[in-house]
Amino acid sequence: MRALYYTATMQSELRQASDPVPAEGQVLIDVSHCGICGSDMHAWHGHDERRIPLILGHEAVGIPRSGKYAGKRVAINPLHACGECRHCLSGDDHLCPGRQMMSMQLPGAYADLTVAGEGNLYPLADTLADADAALAEPLAVCVHAVEVGRKTASRPIAEERCVVLGGGAIGVLTAMVLADQGCKDLWIAEPNAQRRAVLERAVAAKAYDPFSGGPEAESADLVFDAVGMGATRKAACEMVVPGGTIVHIGLQDSADGIDTRRITLQEIHFSGTYCYTRYDFAAALKLLTRGLVKNHEWIEVRPLDQGAQSFVDIHEGKAPPKVILSMA
Amino acid sequence: MRALYYTATMQSELRQASDPVPAEGQVLIDVSHCGICGSDMHAWHGHDERRIPLILGHEAVGIPRSGKYAGKRVAINPLHACGECRHCLSGDDHLCPGRQMMSMQLPGAYADLTVAGEGNLYPLADTLADADAALAEPLAVCVHAVEVGRKTASRPIAEERCVVLGGGAIGVLTAMVLADQGCKDLWIAEPNAQRRAVLERAVAAKAYDPFSGGPEAESADLVFDAVGMGATRKAACEMVVPGGTIVHIGLQDSADGIDTRRITLQEIHFSGTYCYTRYDFAAALKLLTRGLVKNHEWIEVRPLDQGAQSFVDIHEGKAPPKVILSMA
Repeated sequence: MRALYYTATMQSELRQASDPVPAEGQVLIDVSHCGICGSDMHAWHGHDERRIPLILGHEAVGIPRSGKYAGKRVAINPLHACGECRHCLSGDDHLCPGRQMMSMQLPGAYADLTVAGEGNLYPLADTLADADAALAEPLAVCVHAVEVGRKTASRPIAEERCVVLGGGAIGVLTAMVLADQGCKDLWIAEPNAQRRAVLERAVAAKAYDPFSGGPEAESADLVFDAVGMGATRKAACEMVVPGGTIVHIGLQDSADGIDTRRITLQEIHFSGTYCYTRYDFAAALKLLTRGLVKNHEWIEVRPLDQGAQSFVDIHEGKAPPKVILSMA
Repeated sequence: MRALYYTATMQSELRQASDPVPAEGQVLIDVSHCGICGSDMHAWHGHDERRIPLILGHEAVGIPRSGKYAGKRVAINPLHACGECRHCLSGDDHLCPGRQMMSMQLPGAYADLTVAGEGNLYPLADTLADADAALAEPLAVCVHAVEVGRKTASRPIAEERCVVLGGGAIGVLTAMVLADQGCKDLWIAEPNAQRRAVLERAVAAKAYDPFSGGPEAESADLVFDAVGMGATRKAACEMVVPGGTIVHIGLQDSADGIDTRRITLQEIHFSGTYCYTRYDFAAALKLLTRGLVKNHEWIEVRPLDQGAQSFVDIHEGKAPPKVILSMA
């Protein structure tokens, strides 16, 4: 099969590889589409430790060759958990200490074939296109992030001012989930003017340049940091209302930026969020099936053999917020 | 009247002063007892901006000279709010942007007389001694902190491992509230060996030296940081379980210490807590009335004329966790 391997910092390469062999409980899947995620870019930039060479990609859709979904189109939940620990038993598989993620501890899906646990497959509605279904995984991240925020929100999302920091795929999908839940006072911070125009056509939000404007200090009920760097954490701490919530999704850097004094005196919740529960994944597919994503201008589908170049293009800012590789 | 004034960094002085004059809605109160709080020490150390000279003290009990509680013993809620903003209307007076605290924006109660809003007075049960009632304010802080933690706790307090960092009055009272709610796996970090012995007699908790032991990494469901310095935030981030909660009460310093990467990847809640709602204050009085505090070994009542020296003693570690000044 063909597979796009991450081979060294800022390098990847399409190679011929032998077909993966499913372990017990797993099935072999013909991959149709697989999106490129910020965390794939993080790996490609050499910012975390992964074994090399490694097939990246965990936002995948395909057709299993065996099992109960054999021959049917499925979205793959790439997060594999033990199923037995406290967290798994509570429905929080994503917190399982033994969790394994495709493209991290497990091989990914930028390839003609991949393997996944049969319990990780979600059949697609006939009306949902493969490329759209490849958004299920990043959308599940956002569905879950909004759930985390909702836990400590003082009022319904429809009454809240929500601010999303970062206009990448996670930012725009988070904004779409918030708009879907009725948010009318919705802002997205994005420094790139061209991206701001695309964002405003994609979702009913005010896209603003964080370097020259945005919501006033102490005015945002819920802030979603989809960047996760010192500067965005600092901005989040400044703009959140007393009693408000900051949901921290991004992992750009570990620089300081959190104002613990304000967090304490103004009783702010700062909550991390990572991946999704299995139900969040199902909920994301439901949202996609009923047409949450109406505007596709921020998404581009490219063939697998443009995969290596796509990483370079994303790095150089020459790609839209979401690139999805097609194995066709 | 006599009043203990904070006059300069690390200095205070008992002076004669003219009686305070109640504004509209306020009453004049003969003060009986008033505790010394960590935030009074913070002011005395010159760590925050307050006008000088200022009467400190906001953990007060006394007898109003007029109004509906005239002649009756009351505890004073020192937090005065506007009563009209979003936060006040939601019962979160403590988040009111116009909040004013006795001993900060308003004069305090280390004096024979003080003034407070009539709505800030809580009558005492006959069985509750004045000195015990002076614990209502710090206990309300702890009742509220536990409420903040409960919001994002995944399981009941009775099932959780709870760790309190810091064995001062806020630490010990937080531990008492947790024990009262059924916590059986309760730890308090306190470097001072003598204090640890006192703590273990006061509350059913394991007091440990944070420099040589304590709960293992990733084992605490709820961590209450009653110190609030870089080192305790770091310890909290290390010991909290995936999906767990850190409640940040203390305001010792603003040094770094928060591990945003772990908070994100392990989905940890970091919540600030400040003061209490009016109901938390009432709840604290109920707890005191039914005998929450059984052991008084960690409390010392001293006459007002030892007030200036008491600040020095606390600073030098020569006082128990709680000193309460008596105006008698």
